[in-house]
Amino acid sequence: MNVTMLLYPRLTQLDLTGPFEVFSRFPELKLHLVSKTLEPVIDGSGLRLLPTATYATAPQASILFVPGGPGQIDLMADDETLDFLRLQAAGATYVTSVCTGSLILAAAGLLTGYRATCHWLSLNQLPYFGVIPVEERVVEDRNRITGAGVTSGIDFALTLCARLFGDERAKRTQLFMEYDPQPPFVGGSPKSAGTEIVEAARELTRPFQEKRELVALAAAERLK
Amino acid sequence: MNVTMLLYPRLTQLDLTGPFEVFSRFPELKLHLVSKTLEPVIDGSGLRLLPTATYATAPQASILFVPGGPGQIDLMADDETLDFLRLQAAGATYVTSVCTGSLILAAAGLLTGYRATCHWLSLNQLPYFGVIPVEERVVEDRNRITGAGVTSGIDFALTLCARLFGDERAKRTQLFMEYDPQPPFVGGSPKSAGTEIVEAARELTRPFQEKRELVALAAAERLK
Repeated sequence: MNVTMLLYPRLTQLDLTGPFEVFSRFPELKLHLVSKTLEPVIDGSGLRLLPTATYATAPQASILFVPGGPGQIDLMADDETLDFLRLQAAGATYVTSVCTGSLILAAAGLLTGYRATCHWLSLNQLPYFGVIPVEERVVEDRNRITGAGVTSGIDFALTLCARLFGDERAKRTQLFMEYDPQPPFVGGSPKSAGTEIVEAARELTRPFQEKRELVALAAAERLK
Repeated sequence: MNVTMLLYPRLTQLDLTGPFEVFSRFPELKLHLVSKTLEPVIDGSGLRLLPTATYATAPQASILFVPGGPGQIDLMADDETLDFLRLQAAGATYVTSVCTGSLILAAAGLLTGYRATCHWLSLNQLPYFGVIPVEERVVEDRNRITGAGVTSGIDFALTLCARLFGDERAKRTQLFMEYDPQPPFVGGSPKSAGTEIVEAARELTRPFQEKRELVALAAAERLK
């Protein structure tokens, strides 16, 4: 089973490397990091990753996966990428994303009419595309599976692998990855963080989020 | 503050990319992926990462960080790497690791007399090097901070950043990364997984673990 993982400049690398780590522990899955070219891709923080295939050479995906990150906004009107995702999605068994990756799928029209999630700061943008926003960590609707912000990719990938390969193997993988998380603080979601810290976080990212919002509105307009 | 993160063939990439994601959200930290050469480094599952510096060009670390993975065994008698770690550790404020990275630090003599942790399958090997093994997810002893298996790197890095930059900023980072984990199963640690699945996991990795054990014993012998 081919897993096509989209790689693009200024992605949030953990959106991708979390699921990659889970998927890589199932030998049935062949992982492809697919980008426009084979040049190194630089994530939002300077990590340089090498693609394994281009849009032209990528095999048909069984699982199509799109991570999020600041660079998501550059893909919302990028026909080359949106067409690639539509083509791959048409033959894929699962169409999936983590974080703001769901906005890219939405811009390609691939989530219209589905329930889906997104990073909590951008969840409000899904309805622009006719997507039903769900404030949960992993959301499954038919063959669409979406994860919330960044670290939810590990939960998403374990959930998908349990579906594909059964609970026993997924549990064993969780044990090998010693995934028994102990976050140092309560408050990893806006529900538990408290108003003050949520507002401080919103304020810090306001200029970028306003830009992201305008780009989403324009992309939704194009989809009509 | 320079963070020197060791990059080597067949590391477990999430040991490194989890902490990288956390560290990258603190602009005071300058992240360096340091390897023997600037050639791409291939993790245990085929992910290709590009180093930013070599042992010769790496700046003095404030935080020295060593990830684990199958390739750890190749470094246990690698004097070039062990000497590099000793040199960097001598001037570092914190000496840290995730997963079997602690065995590499131990082989360099950098954990002797300290409390530390490791991936649950290899925790028993720390005492060969005069290290006190602790079955906890993040272990702090003076300026040594070690994390347990793979995913514990996220908890480790948030803990360290809370120490360095205060709880408020660490909490905000946890919220931005939406780190409110919901593992699909109970049993991410051997304490909670149940005997049957723990024994199955041990059996699956027995040949490699036996090799790892012999390499550790030989490295401990050399350290005497």
